[in-house]
Amino acid sequence: MEVGIIGLGKMGLNLAMNLTDNQYQVIGMDISEVAQQAAREAGISTVQSVDRLVQAFSGRRIFWLMLPAGEPTEHVLKELFTHVESGDIIIEGGNTNYKDSIRRAAWFKEKAVSYFDCGTSGGISGARNDACLMIGGEEAAFREIEGLFIDIATENGYLYAGPSGSGHFLKMVHNGIEYGMMQSIGEGFQLIEQSAYGFDLATVAKVWNHGSVIRSWLMEIAEAQFSDSPRLAEYRGIVAASGEAKWTVETALDMNVAVPTIAMSLFMRNISQEEDNFSAKVVAALRNGFGGHEMVKK
Amino acid sequence: MEVGIIGLGKMGLNLAMNLTDNQYQVIGMDISEVAQQAAREAGISTVQSVDRLVQAFSGRRIFWLMLPAGEPTEHVLKELFTHVESGDIIIEGGNTNYKDSIRRAAWFKEKAVSYFDCGTSGGISGARNDACLMIGGEEAAFREIEGLFIDIATENGYLYAGPSGSGHFLKMVHNGIEYGMMQSIGEGFQLIEQSAYGFDLATVAKVWNHGSVIRSWLMEIAEAQFSDSPRLAEYRGIVAASGEAKWTVETALDMNVAVPTIAMSLFMRNISQEEDNFSAKVVAALRNGFGGHEMVKK
Repeated sequence: MEVGIIGLGKMGLNLAMNLTDNQYQVIGMDISEVAQQAAREAGISTVQSVDRLVQAFSGRRIFWLMLPAGEPTEHVLKELFTHVESGDIIIEGGNTNYKDSIRRAAWFKEKAVSYFDCGTSGGISGARNDACLMIGGEEAAFREIEGLFIDIATENGYLYAGPSGSGHFLKMVHNGIEYGMMQSIGEGFQLIEQSAYGFDLATVAKVWNHGSVIRSWLMEIAEAQFSDSPRLAEYRGIVAASGEAKWTVETALDMNVAVPTIAMSLFMRNISQEEDNFSAKVVAALRNGFGGHEMVKK
Repeated sequence: MEVGIIGLGKMGLNLAMNLTDNQYQVIGMDISEVAQQAAREAGISTVQSVDRLVQAFSGRRIFWLMLPAGEPTEHVLKELFTHVESGDIIIEGGNTNYKDSIRRAAWFKEKAVSYFDCGTSGGISGARNDACLMIGGEEAAFREIEGLFIDIATENGYLYAGPSGSGHFLKMVHNGIEYGMMQSIGEGFQLIEQSAYGFDLATVAKVWNHGSVIRSWLMEIAEAQFSDSPRLAEYRGIVAASGEAKWTVETALDMNVAVPTIAMSLFMRNISQEEDNFSAKVVAALRNGFGGHEMVKK
């Protein structure tokens, strides 16, 4: 079976290698020559455009997109739209807003192309060896290609989630939960790091990974990171947010559901990215106004 | 080696059985005849008072307390204090505030009794088979009885945390993290439960336990609970809080560290326990005052 992987970044390349290991004929596509080069070194044949990719198949065409969500994904899908034919299959594996997936599936339905939104978890190592996949789309079409997901996911690590959008909806909530878990772990380790006990953070994470209630893959990652860098002293506390927690909070607002810890985790990432904080400046100015408390000058 | 377990509740009884499996001579003590009966049925010999327990040893006396924190623990320790002699060992395995442990260790030091604060995680199954233990106290004395912790903890599942209080400090922060992780998981599943997709919650938890970033023991527990009760429809959303997250937040306040998700998780438990919410009543009254919006009457 041939699979075209569009986007040969960290996730796409590892997914391509995972598929190759499982005897799929993979054709990689990336506009970056550097990314193509890396893929060719890993034994993946590559093309540089959607145009070429479409022609490179000898049989049924399965396109698997692993691109940054938003404009890069939209752009490629629009290009694909002009080329695809009835019976082609698209799997969109990025961290896309589920509302975009619903819209796009309807769009490709006009052309009798099966469109799947595939939430992908497990990080780079997951993409490489044992992915966790949540797939939305039409069930009958899903069952036709289910073997593909069985082959590359870890055991029990894929789920037919339901109609279009459901895969990315689950992945969105998954990431919202992830933000909250990570922020809680971060807050806890700040207390441990700043306590007078002089704890070794890697050792603490290690014991918590052996029998405790909070044992988890995230705690294993914390253990590994603290083993490399005992107090992360060479890093700054700046965290990017790639969209899913924002959508989780937006969805919660639309559903009138309270998600205070997920929202707070997102806000803490936003704060982490600021060089200076304007709300703090306002609070300091008010405090100065009523009590004459000094404001810190630049 | 003889070990006296004081408190034969869920944790104490399972710890006693764990010790018995590991060839320790266990003497159980509980003021409740029902708890004693359960212990005797599990093959544990029991006594009903501290007085009797102290006399029941033939060799070195190790007292392991598994009691509710606060007054029950304080009460038994005061009683023990009048009986213990130089060389005796006390391990206090409850969810105690680390400041109490520091105070009590100093207290028993007067009598040359080694006092260890032991944070215990892993729930009931952990106590029974593979506990996770964080132990604070004097290191030389700890090394003398280290074998005890090796025997009952899971592999790599115990830690000499440092001086008195450090074991319960770590357990406190552990539970703070636990509150945050649990609240995030709760919020995420509320979105999933109330979404229009009609997801099967147990199946979602299951796929997340296979390869996802949020795979964890807590997610495994969620999977098991949703397998028993698909939407928890027969339960009410009321959650108790046993103190550790409150102390985590108090400690964070003393250290000027921000722990917003841990604090929010605790507040959400507090709200969950209210029949009605006064702050909401005030907000409704203010809204009524400026906009004539109706207030809901009892």
